[in-house]
Amino acid sequence: MKCYRHKQLATDYYQISMSNVYINEGKDKDIAVFDMFVRNNPFNGGYIVCAGLEQVVQYLMDLKFEEEDIEMLRENHPELTEVFLDYLRDFRFTGELCAIPEGTILFPHEPILRVKAPLLQAQIVETALLSIINHQTLIATKAARIVQAAEGDPVLEFGLRRAHGSEAGLYGARAAVIGGCLGTSNVESETLLSIPSKGTMSHSYILSFDTEYESFMTYTKYNPNNLILLVDTYNTLKSGVPNAIKVFQQLKEEDRLPKMYGIRLDSGDLAYLSKEAKAMLDAHGFEDAVISASSDLDEYLIRDLKLQGSTINLWGVGTKLITAYDQPALGAVYKLAQVESDGKIYNKLKISNDPGKITNPGYKKVVRLYDNETGKALADLIMLVDETVDETKPLTIFHPIHTWKKRELTDFHAKQLMVPVLVDGELVYDLPTVTEIREHLKEELESMWPATTRFTNPHEYHVDLSDKLWNLKNDILNKR
Amino acid sequence: MKCYRHKQLATDYYQISMSNVYINEGKDKDIAVFDMFVRNNPFNGGYIVCAGLEQVVQYLMDLKFEEEDIEMLRENHPELTEVFLDYLRDFRFTGELCAIPEGTILFPHEPILRVKAPLLQAQIVETALLSIINHQTLIATKAARIVQAAEGDPVLEFGLRRAHGSEAGLYGARAAVIGGCLGTSNVESETLLSIPSKGTMSHSYILSFDTEYESFMTYTKYNPNNLILLVDTYNTLKSGVPNAIKVFQQLKEEDRLPKMYGIRLDSGDLAYLSKEAKAMLDAHGFEDAVISASSDLDEYLIRDLKLQGSTINLWGVGTKLITAYDQPALGAVYKLAQVESDGKIYNKLKISNDPGKITNPGYKKVVRLYDNETGKALADLIMLVDETVDETKPLTIFHPIHTWKKRELTDFHAKQLMVPVLVDGELVYDLPTVTEIREHLKEELESMWPATTRFTNPHEYHVDLSDKLWNLKNDILNKR
Repeated sequence: MKCYRHKQLATDYYQISMSNVYINEGKDKDIAVFDMFVRNNPFNGGYIVCAGLEQVVQYLMDLKFEEEDIEMLRENHPELTEVFLDYLRDFRFTGELCAIPEGTILFPHEPILRVKAPLLQAQIVETALLSIINHQTLIATKAARIVQAAEGDPVLEFGLRRAHGSEAGLYGARAAVIGGCLGTSNVESETLLSIPSKGTMSHSYILSFDTEYESFMTYTKYNPNNLILLVDTYNTLKSGVPNAIKVFQQLKEEDRLPKMYGIRLDSGDLAYLSKEAKAMLDAHGFEDAVISASSDLDEYLIRDLKLQGSTINLWGVGTKLITAYDQPALGAVYKLAQVESDGKIYNKLKISNDPGKITNPGYKKVVRLYDNETGKALADLIMLVDETVDETKPLTIFHPIHTWKKRELTDFHAKQLMVPVLVDGELVYDLPTVTEIREHLKEELESMWPATTRFTNPHEYHVDLSDKLWNLKNDILNKR
Repeated sequence: MKCYRHKQLATDYYQISMSNVYINEGKDKDIAVFDMFVRNNPFNGGYIVCAGLEQVVQYLMDLKFEEEDIEMLRENHPELTEVFLDYLRDFRFTGELCAIPEGTILFPHEPILRVKAPLLQAQIVETALLSIINHQTLIATKAARIVQAAEGDPVLEFGLRRAHGSEAGLYGARAAVIGGCLGTSNVESETLLSIPSKGTMSHSYILSFDTEYESFMTYTKYNPNNLILLVDTYNTLKSGVPNAIKVFQQLKEEDRLPKMYGIRLDSGDLAYLSKEAKAMLDAHGFEDAVISASSDLDEYLIRDLKLQGSTINLWGVGTKLITAYDQPALGAVYKLAQVESDGKIYNKLKISNDPGKITNPGYKKVVRLYDNETGKALADLIMLVDETVDETKPLTIFHPIHTWKKRELTDFHAKQLMVPVLVDGELVYDLPTVTEIREHLKEELESMWPATTRFTNPHEYHVDLSDKLWNLKNDILNKR
């Protein structure tokens, strides 16, 4: 199937317009450092889950412009100079990318990635990098919350039909698995994830037969290992569940009831229906039947259903996950932190009347401090790259705005979170598989105190600046 | 740039699993009719704007499976039979597609498209069709509302960085232009829309120079025709606007002030800042300067800013539009309405305890009734394809649920809304350009009463069923 995309053009025109200026003004040789970070945790939650790095790497390594792209730009934008269009012709990303590995827990204002590259390169890639990270990080964070609510029950991602197109569905499925989903209904995801996609039947399948029972029995002929019967087409408790039980009994007699068998509820009151269905299944000896549900689920509804004693033990989550329904945009930004021009270094920050929008200048890294006794994360420090943390001495950290809020840490160890990914445009990082990333997130979540991960009014995790960075920032602010 | 997508696999696995049953049970020869429709207007609004048909056509016409897809399915899903995998090898969509043209105003329960095809074909394409239509129709509807709030001011789409990946940004931009946006910042959209993308400069551009003034003046050297200066990097009223005025004065003296010139506000209180900026610009003789703004805008904020006397006359809308922030999923569904098997026709509907979820059976069309005097739309009728409306006689229509709510129409004419698009898998429809679709929407909106298009508590437009369809539906409901 033909690919209609010109992904290399997936950028905002101002990146092109500015680049046209840069190259003519000799600014393309300046080396810029950009940080990408999020200003607020999504969903009123306490953390974000990094995701999207693999697609960022693919994008940066493959980025080049075709002759037809250049021709189109020339025609549509007469202001673009030939020297710029020539530059595009030979464009390759030759810079440095450092990033927080996917599946890592991160917090507002911490760089999720850092690009150091000739100004023009760093600028042209901004929009695509933001759309990749904003999307996958958002969905991975939502998925982690939903999986947390499911308390160990498997969660499947079912949202492709409500995704913002099939690409959003595909990478959304990837992010959902990073966030902890066991799998997805998205068949295309098999090309990315090496996990078979999941699913059994829809209402239209059942309607296409004369009877519900016939539709179920016919299904068993072709699906010896996976038998989740959708029971709400006619009437869940009067028709669907009784017919499912008849089918399970028949298969049991014939000694071909699969290990994975059960029902799916897709409408009605899921707490009530699941309890009634479980009682009916148990009464016929089908205690181990899977009771799955899928109907506008999110972390709050799953939590409530569990509190009301629902017997659901497999959750299919669609719309609310794949669109991050209650907050469908993350709002990561990409800000200039440093420019190196003619061998001189200029640290940059964006000033704003809104103090929360003032950025951190300089060439920075993120360090996480762990308690040696509990293994739990204590706080993070954003520091300059050339700084180190002395683990042998007590460390006093302070709030970056309310600086009187101080805290002394002892008996801790420090871990640098960012890893080099591209150096001179070449990959220097072993990209983990999605299942490895999912495992990494599990460990990350275990390293956090529950106060950080609860849904409602979580405790704000401490993200402080090193003395040196704080002073650099305040010097610039005071000097302007 | 390589395309990593396998769009032909962008479906839910249950479509594959059901199809595997259908073909082995000889059901693949059955002819199915599916309707796609929306159950509720998005954004608590009064209408939806159809969009996405062109991409549906592309998808259906290009759909085929590659050998590697088939190999992957065989490996990951041992239950799939060879007869089914063989079928996929030669798969082509050979069915009929009828649809409401893009840019048409539509209402809940009316089919936005109708597929009539061998059951298996109609099933396999469901998920992709839904994700295309759900996405573009959602964004086009949101855009129409935002454009309505702007009351004739141009609106630009700026949201790519917050879109759910670059494909969502691209087709989101297309839908935004259908909804009435003048253009978009998305460069890739030029490959679809034949409209040059828009944009000038970001904060990082300004920061990369020693002074704001220098950054502005340098910009003018390379942009003789488009000079929108971003004025909030340092201080909007103390630095940005005064520097912009200095630049405009300089250019005026040099007789090179372009026709399109002005400022962009991107933070702070836009009502206050725009009024102050306008006063400063006017005082220097720049009454025709564009005052554009872009900062978390949506239809409600634009309406409020206008009510407070803002002088903004060009609106850049990002996050809230490209993600349809306040309702990021449309919820269109695709439901079986008829099956033709061995020459016999079976009308189908989905029964649900929730009456709003009961579907309409049969092979249907949508007719809009217009008042001959005002030209305004009066009501829509969902009817069976073989029915006609006699415009020469009074017509009594009734509410499909509260049937005592009757209304007699006289002096009206009827227009059928659906058009044939694919017949036997071949295109029989002239796909309009996006700008033609945008024009069509303008006319559509003019044919609606303001009661239907207002944001808050709009009047519910009447969508009724023909007598014949109502009887068909109720017969099925009563017989079960």
